[in-house]
Formats: sequence, structure tokens, C-alpha cells
Amino acid sequence: MDARPFRRPVVSPAMDLVELEQRARTLLAPTAYDYIAGGADDERTLADNAAAWGRVRLRPRVLRDVALVDSSTTVLGTPVSLPVLVAPMAYHRLVHDEGEEATAAGTAAAGTVLVASTLATTSLEDVAAAAPGSPQWFQLYVHRDRGFTAELVARAGQAGYRALVLTVDLPVLGYRPRDERNRFTLPEGMVMANVGRSTEATDGSAIALYAAGELDPSLTPADVGWLRGLTTLPVLVKGVLRADDARTCVDEGAAGIVVSNHGGRQLDSAVAGADALPEVVDAVAGRAEVLVDGGVRRGTDVVKALAMGARAVLLGRPVLWALATGGADGVTALLGGMREEVVRAMALCGCPTVADVGPDLLSFPPGRP
Amino acid sequence: MDARPFRRPVVSPAMDLVELEQRARTLLAPTAYDYIAGGADDERTLADNAAAWGRVRLRPRVLRDVALVDSSTTVLGTPVSLPVLVAPMAYHRLVHDEGEEATAAGTAAAGTVLVASTLATTSLEDVAAAAPGSPQWFQLYVHRDRGFTAELVARAGQAGYRALVLTVDLPVLGYRPRDERNRFTLPEGMVMANVGRSTEATDGSAIALYAAGELDPSLTPADVGWLRGLTTLPVLVKGVLRADDARTCVDEGAAGIVVSNHGGRQLDSAVAGADALPEVVDAVAGRAEVLVDGGVRRGTDVVKALAMGARAVLLGRPVLWALATGGADGVTALLGGMREEVVRAMALCGCPTVADVGPDLLSFPPGRP
Amino acid sequence: MDARPFRRPVVSPAMDLVELEQRARTLLAPTAYDYIAGGADDERTLADNAAAWGRVRLRPRVLRDVALVDSSTTVLGTPVSLPVLVAPMAYHRLVHDEGEEATAAGTAAAGTVLVASTLATTSLEDVAAAAPGSPQWFQLYVHRDRGFTAELVARAGQAGYRALVLTVDLPVLGYRPRDERNRFTLPEGMVMANVGRSTEATDGSAIALYAAGELDPSLTPADVGWLRGLTTLPVLVKGVLRADDARTCVDEGAAGIVVSNHGGRQLDSAVAGADALPEVVDAVAGRAEVLVDGGVRRGTDVVKALAMGARAVLLGRPVLWALATGGADGVTALLGGMREEVVRAMALCGCPTVADVGPDLLSFPPGRP
Amino acid sequence: MDARPFRRPVVSPAMDLVELEQRARTLLAPTAYDYIAGGADDERTLADNAAAWGRVRLRPRVLRDVALVDSSTTVLGTPVSLPVLVAPMAYHRLVHDEGEEATAAGTAAAGTVLVASTLATTSLEDVAAAAPGSPQWFQLYVHRDRGFTAELVARAGQAGYRALVLTVDLPVLGYRPRDERNRFTLPEGMVMANVGRSTEATDGSAIALYAAGELDPSLTPADVGWLRGLTTLPVLVKGVLRADDARTCVDEGAAGIVVSNHGGRQLDSAVAGADALPEVVDAVAGRAEVLVDGGVRRGTDVVKALAMGARAVLLGRPVLWALATGGADGVTALLGGMREEVVRAMALCGCPTVADVGPDLLSFPPGRP
Repeated sequence: MDARPFRRPVVSPAMDLVELEQRARTLLAPTAYDYIAGGADDERTLADNAAAWGRVRLRPRVLRDVALVDSSTTVLGTPVSLPVLVAPMAYHRLVHDEGEEATAAGTAAAGTVLVASTLATTSLEDVAAAAPGSPQWFQLYVHRDRGFTAELVARAGQAGYRALVLTVDLPVLGYRPRDERNRFTLPEGMVMANVGRSTEATDGSAIALYAAGELDPSLTPADVGWLRGLTTLPVLVKGVLRADDARTCVDEGAAGIVVSNHGGRQLDSAVAGADALPEVVDAVAGRAEVLVDGGVRRGTDVVKALAMGARAVLLGRPVLWALATGGADGVTALLGGMREEVVRAMALCGCPTVADVGPDLLSFPPGRP
Repeated sequence: MDARPFRRPVVSPAMDLVELEQRARTLLAPTAYDYIAGGADDERTLADNAAAWGRVRLRPRVLRDVALVDSSTTVLGTPVSLPVLVAPMAYHRLVHDEGEEATAAGTAAAGTVLVASTLATTSLEDVAAAAPGSPQWFQLYVHRDRGFTAELVARAGQAGYRALVLTVDLPVLGYRPRDERNRFTLPEGMVMANVGRSTEATDGSAIALYAAGELDPSLTPADVGWLRGLTTLPVLVKGVLRADDARTCVDEGAAGIVVSNHGGRQLDSAVAGADALPEVVDAVAGRAEVLVDGGVRRGTDVVKALAMGARAVLLGRPVLWALATGGADGVTALLGGMREEVVRAMALCGCPTVADVGPDLLSFPPGRP
Repeated sequence: MDARPFRRPVVSPAMDLVELEQRARTLLAPTAYDYIAGGADDERTLADNAAAWGRVRLRPRVLRDVALVDSSTTVLGTPVSLPVLVAPMAYHRLVHDEGEEATAAGTAAAGTVLVASTLATTSLEDVAAAAPGSPQWFQLYVHRDRGFTAELVARAGQAGYRALVLTVDLPVLGYRPRDERNRFTLPEGMVMANVGRSTEATDGSAIALYAAGELDPSLTPADVGWLRGLTTLPVLVKGVLRADDARTCVDEGAAGIVVSNHGGRQLDSAVAGADALPEVVDAVAGRAEVLVDGGVRRGTDVVKALAMGARAVLLGRPVLWALATGGADGVTALLGGMREEVVRAMALCGCPTVADVGPDLLSFPPGRP
Repeated sequence: MDARPFRRPVVSPAMDLVELEQRARTLLAPTAYDYIAGGADDERTLADNAAAWGRVRLRPRVLRDVALVDSSTTVLGTPVSLPVLVAPMAYHRLVHDEGEEATAAGTAAAGTVLVASTLATTSLEDVAAAAPGSPQWFQLYVHRDRGFTAELVARAGQAGYRALVLTVDLPVLGYRPRDERNRFTLPEGMVMANVGRSTEATDGSAIALYAAGELDPSLTPADVGWLRGLTTLPVLVKGVLRADDARTCVDEGAAGIVVSNHGGRQLDSAVAGADALPEVVDAVAGRAEVLVDGGVRRGTDVVKALAMGARAVLLGRPVLWALATGGADGVTALLGGMREEVVRAMALCGCPTVADVGPDLLSFPPGRP
């Protein structure tokens, strides 16, 4: 991948994600904004996700030659221009008319991977077609209807997706007060394209209703093996926060683990990604690649994750704010800005390549176990 | 007990206990609100009770089959639909005309246990009659008049109560600035039905006056034995915060220990229930059941208490807010909502039964001893 | 000393020291209020003094017979009705016309000891005369003029003081921004009665000027011995925050150590009294009595200090707020209220006597060394 | 050096650096104020620099003779009246017409060292001439043009500078949102006098553009040796935050290490100077002198740095606020006030000389590793 020489001026567009969110908020229906921004219960884990990265301090190296800094890497063999992927998120059309197609195009232009959601408002085939030749992954919710689930897997393979990301932290939907109060549902005419349905209005969250009715709460480790039997694609398991679970998944053949608490939207009080990552990396011991999401907002957060042993991070909500405000170009600009941040943080840490980022860069806060 | 299959949509009524309290507040006399909401001195322990649960993080398990989740359990042999009992609290008629009778009916409808207070504004016989056939416990203050106390114990036995909860953390009343300022007293015509008296107006809190004049500050461990000699009911000791005291009580024949600082209303600066629970569980070593109260507001708090080794928790102030706003139905709805929360938290933690909840779910904050 | 039986109602006057300070503030010249309320530099240690007591949690014992609770004790052989003395403070006439005479009378009525200041606005003889027969101590600043200092010591002996408290943490005055900005000086006609002088106006704090000109910055441990040679009274050393210094003072014959950072008025950033106390108690190992001041505001703070091994605490600023608002009676009421608080805290901790208060009552916050 | 006897009144001008900054702000162009006050990204490290000193507590010694307190010391053999130097900062003319010449004169009058910046708005020769006979050091940025860099070194030698301070934490400029938003550039007609150029306007920070185009991002430890070969002056390396890097620099012949995160302007999330200092002191083990900067605002901060093993500290932004409000005299007054603070803190810690300041004075917060 290309290395960024610092001979040319590095002048990033101002990366102010707080401002980006505020701009997006003015453009969105309040219920759509709340659906994306919100978390479970008291939004304690939502807040802690970002705070946990902030608690970690960096110990930069000096006097390393960083005339050329290369932020590119590979994730499960897929080359990416920076160690940041786009996290799977439902319903992109809530924020922009071109929905997932714009996100796919914008992500491809930035040289990285979109993880398309089962609950997309664009069919997985159309998402794939929106970024021809660019690597994409598919996120899978196992439905109670296993035949339908197997069909989704087959369609993803045929459409050229490079990996499957099996979400395991949603046996039931977390309680999300904003959506319950808003009686959140998809707008008239908007459908979950992969499942060919809209949501049904109810006296609470329509998503909670869908999840309770359709998604399978009975998954066990054997289902990782079941899924592997359906496909030749590598399988990542997303939603793991413990060493034992990570080991089990790898034993069942998972090629990757995504350390995640679902952006603070499922179990409120769950440990933050940054706090759970080290034990998972340790447990996996190199037998699979480890990714992490939740609260990543800065290039320095990405460097911290890599230093803890993550292969890459997934970026979530900010991508939807960028989509809302700028469509495909907004997504590309966001990821480009993030790449500038990662490159700058690497340079300031004395790391010309991603492989140079190591645990010696980390300083944990006093008292950490 | 019934298990909740997640096939049916789980759509709880919005559980916003902050809003519930605010609604109750608008309905109540300010002095009644203050009496219930307030704590001792600077209300430091009152605040810490809730904060202590919040400091604990959960490490959810994934890929466990949680298609059926059963929140039921037993407490000292009494079956309950969820591991949450209603804590003993004085003066329910302060907040609703039907007082403890409504609480008893509402609690019974939710399938759990009300711990009726010695200082109820309804006689223990009427409380029992309000929920015929449903298990209830009786909370006991030992009065200086031991004959009268023995009479209370006898009446509780005859009325069908299943256990006695001996409160030991009130040798004197904690200093409660709100009640002193308000010169809190029971309204004209309202009586402590079990003792057949109203409170006497004074230049401070009438409750402090009653407690100082009537309650026995000379209790020792031998009194646990004395109480056991009066009854065949199992005795729980409530208000214990230390390993040594817990062991002593069990040695004296206590069947249960309630870890409690009296909702922050007695000794300000006392350790929070969540902080004291582990040492008590450890000390008791299975020889008695351990319960805990103070600051429990979420299903995740309940799961944390169980994971620390509690058999169940007691819920206090929110029950009175629910009683104030909705009578018996309000209490049932609150406990039903709490049951939804517990079930959801169990599902998201990968625990189909209460027995599956274990200490591996806990992550303590950095630096905890 | 008398024991307080709880048979009689305990109804204290509302102890709201925040409100007491606010009332005093409305009565005082702003410069006088600032002089008393303020601290050094950024008032970090001033704030930390109170916060440090708050960080400590109590582990109350239950099922102890506390029908009679006795808060009395002795300090260097002087009997006091509660383990709280009045700290030495300058210039009582700033807040009340009767100045130190009122404080002396009020303190004596409450059955405890006033530590009269060298910088009093009443002569030490008049202070003694204001509370005939009641035990008092004298706080000593060693002046550059050692003859004058020896004279003060002789006068204190003749006037009947029972102990000398040698202040050692004021080789120079701490920088107190409020007084510098206010150009604080004693009002026209008010004198430091023991030294027979007023303060001189300057472009900053007149006290800083006096201290720099008159007080001796060259004290060494030998001066403790020098002072002992001048008197038969026991000598306490005040302003010690370290084990080594405490040991040195005891080796030089000190009968008591007062752990103190001068109420946060000298070295900003100095450790809080509550944080320094344990190491001093440990170092002194029973060879002298240890007292502590700084930030004590509640009966529970007093119990915490005793549990850490202090013999008693000194109460400062609140006494001047009480003097300002109520004269001698105000001081008596404050100390009476504090005694109620101590008795109540002892009862709720299961301690019928001061000797029952022990280190098992303490729970330190996570991570404390 | 002269010792300050406390016989004479110590009455400092009010040292209120917050107020000083506010006064300066009213006098400056907002973009100039932002350039100086701002930090990188979220200004987390900027805030932590000051907070980290605040977290450390002091354990003052008492009963030491501090009648004479001497704050003077030497730094790399250069005598200074206090262990505080003026940190290298760019563009002094932004805040005062006389720019670096006034700073040089004011610093010399205070008896300490100015570290003149490569990016000064006054030529290094003119800076030297502004304080004839007074010791000054020169801060060096290695430019891509090594010939030009060597020329700077030669000029510094000829102009009489006593040491070179090689900055190594700026391979690229940190992202500074304020400057990007302000499109910060030097005002019309103002030049970087040593390099003979102004900055070029761009759509972001002109400084970022200059740094990216001109400064050398390829430095390695060998360049420390390269620099030593160009000069007989001692070389300090500035921007080190780790033990390993410090050791490497000393191995390459560095005579001094400046522990620094560039005032929070480079890598946001970098450890604070106060947190990194102990490991660097340890690693260097007396083979070089260690200095530190970042967040020093009080005499007590200076004493803490010395107690951790620093030889001296560098003071940054406050010097520019003093220059803005008072020119050379303002700088002298600031450093004089800081000297009063250091002397007072030393006296209150029982340290008559800088050599008396030791690690026993430090108390780290609970839980520190």
C-alpha cells in the first residue's frame, strides 16, 4: 500500500466529530437521530466506551525515522488503506436517500471495508454492486428461520463478500429508552431489503419487536461450526468481551473476533471495548485476528487499539453522521480524515508502519489491574 | 416457575425510575416526599448506594442458549417470580390511601414477597389479609417493651407470615436533616397500626422521638437467639455490613442476612451495600442466605448482586413511588417491569436461569482491593 | 464523665455547618470572612482536607448494647466531654466583640478545651479568666525574640494553662491570595493582645508582614527541648505530617503531636490530615498522644479520626462561625451539637465508649496504599 | 548565589496566573491567543499536564532551620537564581512589539536562562545581544536542509549561547484545531527571523504547512551524534517521555534530557510530564541532567519536579502572558514572583537549599503504580 511521505504538507480538513454529529442532527428526524445516537438503559456503557480510550495514555517514541508513514494493513487478508473498517449498522436510508450504496461507494473510495448489515435498507447485492471490485464483508444475524439464514449466507458468497461477521450479542434487543419513548419504526415505505420487510408499528420500539420475533436467541458455539459449514468465507464472531468466549469461538473455527458491546446498545454496564480487548488478545494468542469497536473517535484511539493487539478497529456512528451530511463523499472525507489522524498519531509515536505499533506505547491509568 | 420464552415480543413499559419519582413527587406532600427520599446527614451513603452498583461492570457471556429465561427462584424456601422482594418501609399511607394493603396486593400479583414493616400504617393482620395465600415476611423492631415485641412476633406467626426480618441497624435513628427541618410527623389521624399510636409532634422529627423513646438500643447477638425462641419462623437479620457480624448472626441461628445500610438513612459514610456484600457472602459461606438492599434501580443491578452471591435483592423507594402514582396496579407494573429488566439482563449475560449467574460476570473497577 | 442514655429522646438542633457559615458570612466584613475561610494558593489542600474524611467509609458494628453511650475521654490527662477541642485561631474579635472570652466561656460550658492562640485579640490572662476552673491550653508561636517567647510561656503557666501547643508549620506565612488582594489588616484599634501590637498596613497581607518580621523561621528539634526546659507543662507539637518528624518530636520530649496542615493555609498541596494521620499514629507507637485537625465537619469524621488512632480532633473555622452568629452560647451550641453527632455516630457504629472505637470500623477507598 | 533571609518581609505581588492569562487575552488578537493557549486534538494532554502536578501531594518537613533559603542552582553548569528556565516558544512578536528581545532582557534581569527558539521572530544574534553577558540556550529544529541547520548551530555558537536544545517530538506538527479553524498565519510583515521567511497562508494552519515542508521527520539517534560533531556546546534532547529513549540519547552523548510533551501541542493522549519524569530520572541515573516542562504553574510544582529528580523546570505560556502585559518588566516580575513561590515552598517544606529537596517530600495519589 502507499506510504504517506511527510514532504508534502499534511493539512487535514478539520476533524471535529462533535460538530459533525451536531450538523447531522439538524438534518435528521429526531427519532432517527435518537435511534443512531442512543444506547441501552442509562447509556452508561455508551459513555464509557469513549471514556475508556481516553483513560489510556500514550508513551510516544522519538528519534525514529518517520519520513514515510504507511497506515495500510490487511485484515483477514483483505488489504485496507488504514486499520479502520466501517462497522455494521442498520438502516442507512434513515439518514440519506442513497443509503448503504453511498456508504459502500464512499468507503471503497477511502480504500477500506464496509461491513454491510443484515438489517440494511439496501439489498446485499445492491450494496456489493455499489462498490464493484472493492472488498466488503457481510454481517449476519441468525434468524429463527435457519433456511432463510442459510440463504443470506449463500447470497453473500455469490455477491462477492469476503468475510462473514456473525453477531452474537443480540439474543434479545437491549432496552433503548429513546426508541421506546419514540415508538421508533422505519418510515413508511422503507424496508429491511435483505429480509424484504418493513417494521411493524407497536407501542414501543419496532426493532425490539422484530428482534424478539425473528432473531434466534438459542445460539451456541456449535452454530459457529454450522455457519462455517455453509460457506468457504472466513467467519468473524462479533460481540465477544471475555477470554473464555473468545477461545471457544476460535476453537469452533472463527477466523476473527470482534470485541464489542454493540456500541453500548445492548447490555448497559457491559465492560468497554478498550477494557476487554487485552484479555481477548491474550486468550486468542494469535490463532485469530482481533478487532474492536465502540467509542473510537481519534487516530490516537486507533493506535491504542493496535498497541493492545487489535488488528483493526470498526468505526460506527460517525460514519452515519458523515453519510447524513455528505453522502458518499462525506464518508470518504471522514475516513480520509481518520487516515490522516492515524498517520499523524503513528508519526508522533515513532511508528512508520502498523507493524511498528506495540504495547510499549501504552500507559494505563493508576490502579488498573 | 414459568420461564419466559423470547419467541413473544419483549416490549416493556418504559422503565424510567427517575421519571416515576418525579411524578410521585408532584402528588405527595413535600414533607412526605422528603421523608421517603431523604437520607442521613449529607446523604453521602444514599448517593453511594446507587453509585456503587454503577461502578461494577458486567462481562456478558455469549453463545448460550437463552431462548427460555427463567427469573424465578426461592428465598428461604419461598418461591418468587424474580429475585427482587419489596423492602420493609414505614407508613405506606403517607403516599396512598390504601397504603400497605395496596402494596401487598400489588406485590402478590407480581409473584414476589412484601416485607411488611413494624411501623406500617396498616395492621400486620390486614396486610396479610390483603394478599391471601401469598407469601409475606414481617420486619421487626425490638421495642424496649419486650412483652409487646413478643406479642408482635406471635401475631405475625398467627397471621401467616413466612419469615421474620430483625432490623439491627437502628439502635438510634440516624440524623435526617430534611425531617428535622420539616418537623416531620404523621398526618392527623394516621397511626402506626401495629403499635396503636400516632407520632407526637416535637420541634424536630417525630420519628426520631419515637425511636429514642420506644426502640431498644441494647440489642446483642443473644437477642437473635431470644427471638428464635419465640417463633418457629426463620429469622433474617437486616442491617449487617461486616463479615464478623454476619458470622455472629449465623452462629446465633439466623437463616438469612440482609446486607443493608438502611437506604442511607442511618449512618452516613457507611459502606454501600454493593461494597459490603462480597465480604458477607464470603463469611457466611453458604450457612445462610444473603440478601442486599440499597440503590438497586436496574435489572443489571440485580444480576450484579446475584453474581456477588446474593440470593435476592430488596427494592425500596421505587415501590413507594409506584404506589403513590398507581396504587396496587402501579406496584405490580413496577415489579413486572423490573422482572422484564432482570430477564433481559440475564439473557444478555447468557444466563437462562438464576443459578447460571456467577461471579465470572463481574468486572470490578481498577484498584479495588 | 456522664454517659448519654438513649432512653431520652435525642433531638439535636439541626447541624448544618454550611448554613452556619453562610449566616456568619452575612454578619462579617468580607475581609474578615475571607481571612478565616481562605487557604493558601489555589486552596487545593483546603478542599482536600474535608474531601479526605469523606473518602473514608465506615463499617458499622451491629448488635452491641449502646443503651448508654459515653463520648467523654481525656486528652493528655485533661478530661473532656467529647474528643473534640477548639483549635487555636487568631483574632476572635474580628467576628464578635467579646472575642476569645466568649469562645473560652462557650467552650468551657461544653466541657472541652480551648487552645488559645498567641495571636489572640485578648490577653492569655483574660482568656483564662473567662473560664475559671476550666482546662485550657496555650498555642505558642516562637518569636525571633526568645526572651519575649519565654515570657509568654511563663505567663501561660501562671495563668493556669494545662499544656502548650507549639506550632511548627509556619516558618513563613503561606501565600493567601484573598488576604493579599484584600490587603488584610486588623481593624483600627484591634490589637494582638499577647504581643501588645496591632498589625501594620502594607500593600499585601499585614499578617504576612508580621510573621516575616517577628516569627522565628530557624526552629529545629532542639527547640522542643528548649521549650520543655522553660515549663513543667506538657508540650504538643502542631503541624506535623510525617512519621519521621513525629518520631523526632517525641524523642525530644513532646507529649503530643497534632497532625495538621494548618487548615490548608500554609503549604498548598500538603497531604490532608486524614491521609497523614495513620503514618503518624504508627510512628509514635503510643509514646505520645496524637491529635488531628483540618476539614472535620461531622461526628462521623471524629469517629474516623479516633478509629485511625487519634486521641481527639481539633475543630477550627466552624467555631468562629458559631461565635460570630451566637457568641459564647453559639459556641456551646455548636460543640453540644457536635457531641450529639459523635454520640450518634458511636451508637450507630456499635461503640458505647471512645475506647471501643477501633480500626476495624474503617474501609479505605479502592487503591489506597 | 544569594540566599533569601526571611528576616525581611516576604510580600510577593499577587501571583494569579489565571488572571494574568485573562489580561493578556484582552490585549491579543484572538488567533494569536489561540495559537499560544491551544493544544492538540481534544486538548486532553494540555489539561492533564497541569492536573498531573496537582495530583501529587507534598509531605512537608518541619523543624528545619529555614531562616535563609537559597533557590539558586546550576543547570549544565549555568548558574540560575531559581530552578526555572524559560521554555523555547515561537513568535514572541505575536504578543509584544519588542518580542524575544524583551523576553531575553526580562529573563536575564531575573537571573535565569531563556531558551531561544529556532522559530523566533528575532534573529538569534539579536536575542543574544538583548541580554549581553547573560547565559542563554538555543533551541534547534533540524531542517530538511542540513546545511542550513549546521549554519544555525554555528551561528548559535558564535553568538555565545551556552547549550543547544534539540527538539525531537515534532517530526510532524500536532493537529491543533484552533489554528486550523483560524487559518493561523504570522501577521503581514512578521518573519521567522532565523530562517528569514514569513509563513504562507493556506486553508489551515500555516505552521503545519511550514513544519511539513521544512522540518526533518527522519531524525534518528545518530543525529544526536551528528549535532554533537557540529559544536562544542552541550546538547540537551527535548521531547523525551520514556526511559528507553532517554537512555539512547544519553548513550549518544546528550548532556541533558527535557521531559516534555510539547505543552500538549503534539500528541494528544501523551503522558503528562509529571507522570513521565520519574522513569526518565531513573533511566538516566545521573549520567545527564533531567529537566521537565508542561503545566508548571506554582512554586510547589517546581518543588515537586525537583523532588522527583529534575534539575529544573521550563516555564512556557505564562512567560508570553507576562510579556504581552508587561514587556521585559512583566517577564522579570513573573520570574521574580515564581522565585518567591519557590522560596516559600522550599521554606514550608523545610528545605533551605535546592539540594535539600528530596523524594521523601512526595506523596503519590492512591493506586499509582
